[in-house]
Amino acid sequence: MVQPLDVLTVGNALVDVIARENDEFLELVGVVKNSMTMVDEETALRIYDLMGPATEVSGGSAANTAVGVAAFGGNAGFIGRTRDDQVGDFFRHDIEAAGVRCAGGITTEGLATGRSYIIVTPDAHRTMCTYLGAANQLEVADIPTGLVEAAAITYIEGYLWDQPAAKDAIREIGDRVAAAGNQFAFTLSDSFCVDRNREEFLDLIEHRFDIVFANEAELCSLFQTDDFDAAFEGIRARCDVVAVTRSEKGSILARGEEIVEIPAAPTDVVDTTGAGDLYAAGVLFGLTHGMSLAESGQHGAIAAAEVISHVGARPVTDLRTLIA
Amino acid sequence: MVQPLDVLTVGNALVDVIARENDEFLELVGVVKNSMTMVDEETALRIYDLMGPATEVSGGSAANTAVGVAAFGGNAGFIGRTRDDQVGDFFRHDIEAAGVRCAGGITTEGLATGRSYIIVTPDAHRTMCTYLGAANQLEVADIPTGLVEAAAITYIEGYLWDQPAAKDAIREIGDRVAAAGNQFAFTLSDSFCVDRNREEFLDLIEHRFDIVFANEAELCSLFQTDDFDAAFEGIRARCDVVAVTRSEKGSILARGEEIVEIPAAPTDVVDTTGAGDLYAAGVLFGLTHGMSLAESGQHGAIAAAEVISHVGARPVTDLRTLIA
Repeated sequence: MVQPLDVLTVGNALVDVIARENDEFLELVGVVKNSMTMVDEETALRIYDLMGPATEVSGGSAANTAVGVAAFGGNAGFIGRTRDDQVGDFFRHDIEAAGVRCAGGITTEGLATGRSYIIVTPDAHRTMCTYLGAANQLEVADIPTGLVEAAAITYIEGYLWDQPAAKDAIREIGDRVAAAGNQFAFTLSDSFCVDRNREEFLDLIEHRFDIVFANEAELCSLFQTDDFDAAFEGIRARCDVVAVTRSEKGSILARGEEIVEIPAAPTDVVDTTGAGDLYAAGVLFGLTHGMSLAESGQHGAIAAAEVISHVGARPVTDLRTLIA
Repeated sequence: MVQPLDVLTVGNALVDVIARENDEFLELVGVVKNSMTMVDEETALRIYDLMGPATEVSGGSAANTAVGVAAFGGNAGFIGRTRDDQVGDFFRHDIEAAGVRCAGGITTEGLATGRSYIIVTPDAHRTMCTYLGAANQLEVADIPTGLVEAAAITYIEGYLWDQPAAKDAIREIGDRVAAAGNQFAFTLSDSFCVDRNREEFLDLIEHRFDIVFANEAELCSLFQTDDFDAAFEGIRARCDVVAVTRSEKGSILARGEEIVEIPAAPTDVVDTTGAGDLYAAGVLFGLTHGMSLAESGQHGAIAAAEVISHVGARPVTDLRTLIA
C-alpha cells in the first residue's frame, strides 16, 4: 500500500549552478533575459567557462514545488530522472532531506544529471540556460506503481513538453490520474515553452488539466494577446482552478465564478529564482488542506516571498512558521 | 617565464557542502562544535545522509585565501589536488573564475575530490567534517616548476600536516622558497590540528616560517597555555610577522617590536566559515603591496567581515570596493 500524498510533482531533475553577472554577460552568451533556454552540453560548458564562481543548489521547477509543499508540512512526492553521478547524488540527497518522497529512474550510463546555469542580474532577475541531460530520458517505466493513484493532486511542469520521450510518460500519468478520480495540475513554465507547444497546451488544458498555474507573460503567450483580462477569461473558461502570478502586483486566482486577487507579500528581493514554483507550492498545499481559494493564494504569496529573499530556489525556512 | 604572483597558497582542494542544523545535530553525529574533524568516506556519507538540504560552494582554507587575495586585485595562485569528477570540475571552475591561477595534480583514478561537510548552527558558528579524498594525495610532482620561485609569499595551511604524503611536498616547497629568497607563511588552521602536530609546528615556526597566522585557541594550544599574552609573546619571538584573530575582539599583529591591535569590522554574522581564511588574505595582500602592518590588518578585518555576512567561505563582493 502506497503512503497517501497531498501533491506529487513530475518534472526535470536539475541542480542549479548560480552566479551573479551583469546584463552584459547575457549579451555575451546570447540569451534572452528572464527566459529559460534549453542548451546542449557543448553550449552549457561554454557558458559555464564564462561564468564567475558559482553556488550549486538543487533545483528543477516541479521539484522545488514539491519541496515547498513539504516545507508547509504537506506530504509531497517527486518523479524525475537523474544519473548515478555526483550531481545526481546532490539532487537526490537534497530532495529527500527536505522530506519529499523522490521516485524516478536513476540511469547508470548515458547523459549526466541535468544542470541549470542560472545568471542572477543586479536587478535580482534570473535567466536560465538548462542542460537537461538525464532528465531528458524520463519514461513510462519511471512512474512507480500506485504513486499517482495515491496523490490528491499530480502536478506537471510544461518544460517536460520539450522532451518527446516524456510525453508518453505524461499521457500515462494523465490516464492514471483520471482513473483514480484525482486532480491533475499543470504549470505553463515559460512563455517561450508555451510558444513551442501552444496547440498541445490549449488542448490539454481544455481536456485534461483541472488546475493551471501561469504568470502573465505565459498566459498572454498562450492566447497570443497583449490583453491580460482577455487571456485570463480564456484560461478560466477552460479549467476548474487557475492561479496567475503578476510579479509585484501579486496574483489572481479563479475557481468557477469565484475570483480573488492576492497582493504580493512584502520582502527584499535578492534572487527571483523559484518564485513561481513556490507560489504553486503554497496554492497546492492550501487546496489539499481544505482552505479557501484566498487562503491558498496567500500561502502561495508567502512561500514566493520567502524564496526570493535569498539565493536559491528552495525555501530555507520552515514555511509553517511564516504562516503562523 | 612564470608570471609573478603576490601570494601562492597550498592546501586541500575541497568543495563545501553546507547545511543549517541545530546544536543537537552535532551531538547526533558526534563532533565537537567549531572544530574540523577529518572523516573517512563511510563517516562522511553517514553524516551527509543525516544532513538537511545543502548548498555546495567551493572551499578549502588556503584556496579561500587565494580567492580573497584575488578579490583585492592581487595576483594569486593555488596548489591542491583534485580528481577528474564533477566536484573537481566545480572546484577548478570556481577558483579560476575568481581569477586565481590553479595548479596541482588532477587524478584520474582513486579517491574522489574532497568535500567538507559544514554544519552552520543558529549562532552562525561552523563545525566541519572533512573527507579529504584526492586532496590527501598531494605530492612533490604537483608543484609546477618556477611557481614557488615566482611568488613573493607562499602560504601553507596546517591541515596539510595530517597527510604524510603532503609533507614531502611542503619540504620541497620550503626549500624552493628559501633558495629564491621569498617569504614562507603558515596558518595553524585548527586547535586540534595543532594538538596533533605540536612539536613539528613549533620547530617549523622557529626555523622555516616567516609569517604565522593563528586564532586564539590555536595559539594557546600551540603553547599549551590558557594565558594568551604568554602565547603571543612565544610566537612573536619565533617569527618575523604574526597575526592572531580574536573573533569579535578583532586581531593583533606583531612585526619585530611593532604591535598593532585591529578592531573587528562591524557586520551581521550569518556564517563564520572562511573568516580566518579571508583575514589572512587581507593581511597577505597588504604585506605584498607595501602597506603598514596596521593597514594590512585592516584589510584582513574587512575581508573577514565580508565573508561572515553571508553563507559560504569566499567573498561575493569585489573587496576593492569595500576598502574604497
